[in-house]
Amino acid sequence: MKLNILGCYSATPRTFTNPTSQVLEIKNHLFLIDCGEGTQVQLRKNKIKFSHIKHIFISHLHGDHYFGLAGLVSTFRLYSRESELHIYGPKGIKEVITLQMKLADSWTNYPLLFHELTSKQSQLVFEDDKVEVHTIPLDHRVYTNGYLFKEKPGERKLNMEAAKELKIDKAYFSKLKQGFDVENVDGELIKNEKVTHAPVKTKSYAFCSDTAYKESIVPIIRNVDALYHESTFLEKHAHLAPRTKHSTAKEAASIAKQANAGKLILGHYSTRYDDLEEFIKEASPIFKNVVLADDGKKFKI
Amino acid sequence: MKLNILGCYSATPRTFTNPTSQVLEIKNHLFLIDCGEGTQVQLRKNKIKFSHIKHIFISHLHGDHYFGLAGLVSTFRLYSRESELHIYGPKGIKEVITLQMKLADSWTNYPLLFHELTSKQSQLVFEDDKVEVHTIPLDHRVYTNGYLFKEKPGERKLNMEAAKELKIDKAYFSKLKQGFDVENVDGELIKNEKVTHAPVKTKSYAFCSDTAYKESIVPIIRNVDALYHESTFLEKHAHLAPRTKHSTAKEAASIAKQANAGKLILGHYSTRYDDLEEFIKEASPIFKNVVLADDGKKFKI
Repeated sequence: MKLNILGCYSATPRTFTNPTSQVLEIKNHLFLIDCGEGTQVQLRKNKIKFSHIKHIFISHLHGDHYFGLAGLVSTFRLYSRESELHIYGPKGIKEVITLQMKLADSWTNYPLLFHELTSKQSQLVFEDDKVEVHTIPLDHRVYTNGYLFKEKPGERKLNMEAAKELKIDKAYFSKLKQGFDVENVDGELIKNEKVTHAPVKTKSYAFCSDTAYKESIVPIIRNVDALYHESTFLEKHAHLAPRTKHSTAKEAASIAKQANAGKLILGHYSTRYDDLEEFIKEASPIFKNVVLADDGKKFKI
Repeated sequence: MKLNILGCYSATPRTFTNPTSQVLEIKNHLFLIDCGEGTQVQLRKNKIKFSHIKHIFISHLHGDHYFGLAGLVSTFRLYSRESELHIYGPKGIKEVITLQMKLADSWTNYPLLFHELTSKQSQLVFEDDKVEVHTIPLDHRVYTNGYLFKEKPGERKLNMEAAKELKIDKAYFSKLKQGFDVENVDGELIKNEKVTHAPVKTKSYAFCSDTAYKESIVPIIRNVDALYHESTFLEKHAHLAPRTKHSTAKEAASIAKQANAGKLILGHYSTRYDDLEEFIKEASPIFKNVVLADDGKKFKI
């Protein structure tokens, strides 16, 4: 799984920083998460193949998280896209994007499918044979969801030599990969563990932005391999966090610790701060494996 | 009058080119003309004082001419703007911008005033004691206006020495500046021309984008000092111009010639062309004083 941060600063685009957007490469999918103004330029700068994006997940309808979406939808039209584009986001996203198409008298020639969200409970919003995406209900000024991306467990790996030695007919191989015990040609029951290895451990990634400190998300993201959690403020401005429904670096670290996350990636910094290392200093005493997101930075999960 | 091109390419933003936006400095006004995605970053790069912009003129509701507007309106809110912001543009612009504010639950704390346009005739849309702005009805796929910016003639310049010599009481000076003849202290009528000079010649600028070739705009923009006219295509793609309701470089030159413009500024190039000098080559045999717009370029008018 690879994460490419396109933008990770709060508020509005500036000369050298971008509002929220990131691309997650997971099992042949290229998922776009949030789409602040300028995202299509950031996609180009990061040499990401636009056309491979088929699913876009929007957290909430504040401009710094989706004002680049209408432009991206138009660009796909100009590029004669044919494949489906699925957009997941809060109720209202369909109205605002289609109004812009209506006023431009420019409808897409590709299927554009909206999946509008209203639930305040975590729900499964996307699933195929390899990947699941669940919402993470967050606590912000407007209705907001984070997203949990999970690889599904693959099949068990077959030990061919052991299977041969134990005289298992190859007709049973697929049963073995699925974890069943099987009989060999002599009618003996062979325990699955004797001829298979566990599948490669699945990975998961949770995106949580924007949100006030919210402990109730911990069970949803428990044991996640990587957690991106917003940290808009440092301690000296901690009083602003609950009022604006954002988090501090310490609060992000506390969520990562309680969730037993593998790694914490901080982002959505207020543009009032010049020295981002301060975020690490405040988070690391609570949760050690913490890193800073930055525009253009890539993470392997 | 100073014109600062922020973006002058057609279609969508790319790594190194920007969609349409420009700033016109005229008699203490800073007018923003169109506002494609990324305009606020371009404003910063060009070191333009955001807060001085009080009037925004949008030509039409295709994304490459206004997808940066909602973000700019939000940024003004974050910067605690207090002064009025006037937005001129086609009917629908109010609905689409206010819907975005409604969904974000973020209303401006400054007065935001929309002036929606529907007329197919040229009309005066802004006027104060120094400047007039008129629409220029264009011919595009959706309802579109160009804008004509005109300085108003100032007062006549007083020749102080002549006025003294001819014994005119200073109580009459303002009448003289307004062009009237006055009596001197001896009761003689003094012709205005004897004691005043003509005011500085007023300047005008016309912005025409996007449009098919449209001769009926010529009387509206006659004798304009500088004409920005879109030239999306070169001759080899001239067949695409009427179909897409755009113009070629030659057509732009023909309009400039008929209007007796002082200077022609070409722009809105299709992104299929690498060598922009071709536009000059095709326009200059018809209209000599032609120059290329480019992102970040400044013109003195």
